[in-house]
Amino acid sequence: MTSGPAETPRPVPPGLVEAFREYERALMADDVEALDRLFAPGPTTLRGDAEGLLVGHDAIAEFRGSRGGAPRRRIVQTHVQVVDDDHALVVAVTELERGGRGQQTQLWARSATGWAVTAAHVSVPAPALDTRVWRVVGDPLVPGAGSGPLAGETLAVKDLYAVAGHRVGAGNPTWLAQAPVESEHATVVGRLLAAGADVRGLARTDELAWSLAGTNAHSGTPPNPRAPGRIPGGSSSGSASAVSLGHATVGLGTDTGGSIRVPAAYQGLHGIRTTHGLLPRDGLLPLAPSFDTVGWLTRDAATLRRVGEVLLPPSPGGGDDLVVVPSLLALATPEVAAAVEGHVDAVAPGVAREEWDLPLDDWLDAFTTRQGFEAWQAHGGWAGGRLDALGPDVAGRFRHAGTLSAADGERAAGVAAEARTRIRDLVGDRVLVLPSAASVAPRPRDDMARVRSATLRLTLLAGLGGLPAVSLPTSAGGLPCGVCLVAAPGRDRDLLDLAVRLSKP
Amino acid sequence: MTSGPAETPRPVPPGLVEAFREYERALMADDVEALDRLFAPGPTTLRGDAEGLLVGHDAIAEFRGSRGGAPRRRIVQTHVQVVDDDHALVVAVTELERGGRGQQTQLWARSATGWAVTAAHVSVPAPALDTRVWRVVGDPLVPGAGSGPLAGETLAVKDLYAVAGHRVGAGNPTWLAQAPVESEHATVVGRLLAAGADVRGLARTDELAWSLAGTNAHSGTPPNPRAPGRIPGGSSSGSASAVSLGHATVGLGTDTGGSIRVPAAYQGLHGIRTTHGLLPRDGLLPLAPSFDTVGWLTRDAATLRRVGEVLLPPSPGGGDDLVVVPSLLALATPEVAAAVEGHVDAVAPGVAREEWDLPLDDWLDAFTTRQGFEAWQAHGGWAGGRLDALGPDVAGRFRHAGTLSAADGERAAGVAAEARTRIRDLVGDRVLVLPSAASVAPRPRDDMARVRSATLRLTLLAGLGGLPAVSLPTSAGGLPCGVCLVAAPGRDRDLLDLAVRLSKP
Repeated sequence: MTSGPAETPRPVPPGLVEAFREYERALMADDVEALDRLFAPGPTTLRGDAEGLLVGHDAIAEFRGSRGGAPRRRIVQTHVQVVDDDHALVVAVTELERGGRGQQTQLWARSATGWAVTAAHVSVPAPALDTRVWRVVGDPLVPGAGSGPLAGETLAVKDLYAVAGHRVGAGNPTWLAQAPVESEHATVVGRLLAAGADVRGLARTDELAWSLAGTNAHSGTPPNPRAPGRIPGGSSSGSASAVSLGHATVGLGTDTGGSIRVPAAYQGLHGIRTTHGLLPRDGLLPLAPSFDTVGWLTRDAATLRRVGEVLLPPSPGGGDDLVVVPSLLALATPEVAAAVEGHVDAVAPGVAREEWDLPLDDWLDAFTTRQGFEAWQAHGGWAGGRLDALGPDVAGRFRHAGTLSAADGERAAGVAAEARTRIRDLVGDRVLVLPSAASVAPRPRDDMARVRSATLRLTLLAGLGGLPAVSLPTSAGGLPCGVCLVAAPGRDRDLLDLAVRLSKP
Repeated sequence: MTSGPAETPRPVPPGLVEAFREYERALMADDVEALDRLFAPGPTTLRGDAEGLLVGHDAIAEFRGSRGGAPRRRIVQTHVQVVDDDHALVVAVTELERGGRGQQTQLWARSATGWAVTAAHVSVPAPALDTRVWRVVGDPLVPGAGSGPLAGETLAVKDLYAVAGHRVGAGNPTWLAQAPVESEHATVVGRLLAAGADVRGLARTDELAWSLAGTNAHSGTPPNPRAPGRIPGGSSSGSASAVSLGHATVGLGTDTGGSIRVPAAYQGLHGIRTTHGLLPRDGLLPLAPSFDTVGWLTRDAATLRRVGEVLLPPSPGGGDDLVVVPSLLALATPEVAAAVEGHVDAVAPGVAREEWDLPLDDWLDAFTTRQGFEAWQAHGGWAGGRLDALGPDVAGRFRHAGTLSAADGERAAGVAAEARTRIRDLVGDRVLVLPSAASVAPRPRDDMARVRSATLRLTLLAGLGGLPAVSLPTSAGGLPCGVCLVAAPGRDRDLLDLAVRLSKP
């Protein structure tokens, strides 16, 4: 047994200081080749920072190749703990040119090809606010009533809701620049404040809420702390990430075609979209009024329910029988389908299976057509002449929406009305269980159009049905995914009770 | 030469997993004794987090003893890199109960007494905003004109200035709760916005700006990144820390008795307090109007000057001769005096020394009496009945201020007027060089009353004189301190030019 480095300092082995200096030079020069060489090859090399831990030389090299260099810095302190002639820990305090201090801890090992880092842990000062998640934050931004059933809760308000004294940004800087300062809170915001919750801030949204990805061409992609490197889900992306990160306890959002359920699934949160028309939408920017609903996200089922107790009317009542539709499960990836089925079997053994034969392609077409038609009615006048002020995906949706005729809109409304009746009949007095999204959170490079249409086939059931839906977290292969419960209109509080009962502890 | 851990994974040595688990147990139980035992003894043991790097077992033990436990968390990933039978690096990804993920990197070493950590690096998710530094922040909070000489600059506005749409908080929650929403910007804020700067946010201040420490009983102490564990200096504490941390490029503050110069000195920033009465103070909460001035802090002299070019009228002109007064230097600690003298000798060799015989005790009494008298005139009506709503230090100052008679106030004004004349005569056409503060940033446990009165003896010269003063950063024993330049009234822009010339690169 040798003694620890703290007890008997050993001389710094030859070559280490030079390798450390070369690393610093390469970092400042963004010399990716040298950096790759100075990180040990193989699958066990580690590099961690605030965005997460990368495992393996390949993942680290991919990160380096795409980040465009490290922030300018100088080293102000260095501490070396020598283990033996071939291993040493180097801890450095850095001072960033942009302000603040950071720390870097590296384990260096010498092999036949020289010194290389086998593990690195890098910290830099946090920014004033994470602008991917928030547009404005405060301590609090707007204080609540001080007491009430939600005292102590903090709200991340999706930047579609009016908060008195602030503008609505809608995820687009051009929109924000011309938006008026709101003189009143949206009704739901006011009710939550009156119940004692504070507004922590205004959270980012996908542009005009018209996306399920959670990306934004202007403010960037909020992080998904439960699935680093993967998208957060949207459009209530900032609200969801704020809750995941612990910046707020309640993420107030909206759900038109899945904008609560998808980020809940991708980030392992609890979420509810309420019955269409049940909660007031004044002070809330519309996307497609036939489908838009108020919703919220939390880290636990109890908080999800407590918010509902403030906002929601009593349930009309109904049964608690669950039903699983195998053909809907099969719309998800096999891992997600298995995870959802496994969750249900664990918390509610013996759930009925039933086969439904649904014209999902027609319904998807009707849903997206009607959504586009209404979005154009709501915002085409503004967006039509400003497509270059929108990110490419949302601009493309508006461009297509602008081609829809009144007849297209009417036809889609007709199919949607039939679908609504059919879905409500099928669900009846029961609770439909299905995946909240078709997959775990994809990586940014994945085929988003495919991901989106696969998930919409699942989420449109509550969307077209105007039904309340709750998403509970479960996991597939170590990544979050969601179990979705859908019930008859007005049964929102029943779903929240069920969420508490059916959540895994 | 042995190969690195990445190439030939070795078995985890006996006892390591148990020690790691015991550490986790002790951390969650805040079992300080066990934690102390599980960190290697001696002066080279390291522990770093966002607040800085602690060096030595004693410093780490002191931190642990006072922090009251770590945030609740669970470990979701563990990676072990075994160096040899007695050394291993353990990297763990943590999931915090309050949200978000963190990382912990530990080098473990086995000695005769068992396994212990010789170095630890801990990261937890950043909060939505650092509430010690900020009350509200945005991206931006208020956009500037979009173009202009300050385009790209971001302002941390001390929470004493009116920003339209927001309240003035003055560093006290009771004050904030009753403050109206401002309908107009303070003039200087408006001018900076018109020049293209954005408002990043509203920065914390010592209560009603009546302190030089930078502590606040309600929102905590902003960090001093250049001197971790030491106070930031105040009362423009949040503005200064925001600039140090890189959260903003310009910290807008005020200086009555040193509230720009002291945080500049403690944090290694550039700062200016302007000539008394030169810049409009409408929309700015007063402390003692006879002494209150507008000021700002930056990370470099060029930015300090560019802000002045927007706000300040031309200088009446004057000489550039510097003068050092040894008896004023001697009011600082020997290290700070030597650092200031060394800085001056390096950038401007051959500066004249001159002895001044000043009644500093009388002046200090007159300054603090008049300041207290005016503070009571301004805020006594509010504060008098709410002393328990103030932190103990500021409450004590108000309590004393309430005992001052009109005659006390008159007498102090008389001495202050004499002092003003005398100081202006002595400075004349020259530039006085003195320490910005009497010491480097003290630790929170140091005797603040002594620190305050030592520094006030230096800062009151510009305060009583109504003179502009610039603070340039230098350092003493690795810690920041400030070189202060004081000139005749209206020579603010000359001082800013001089600051650019006399700053060390």
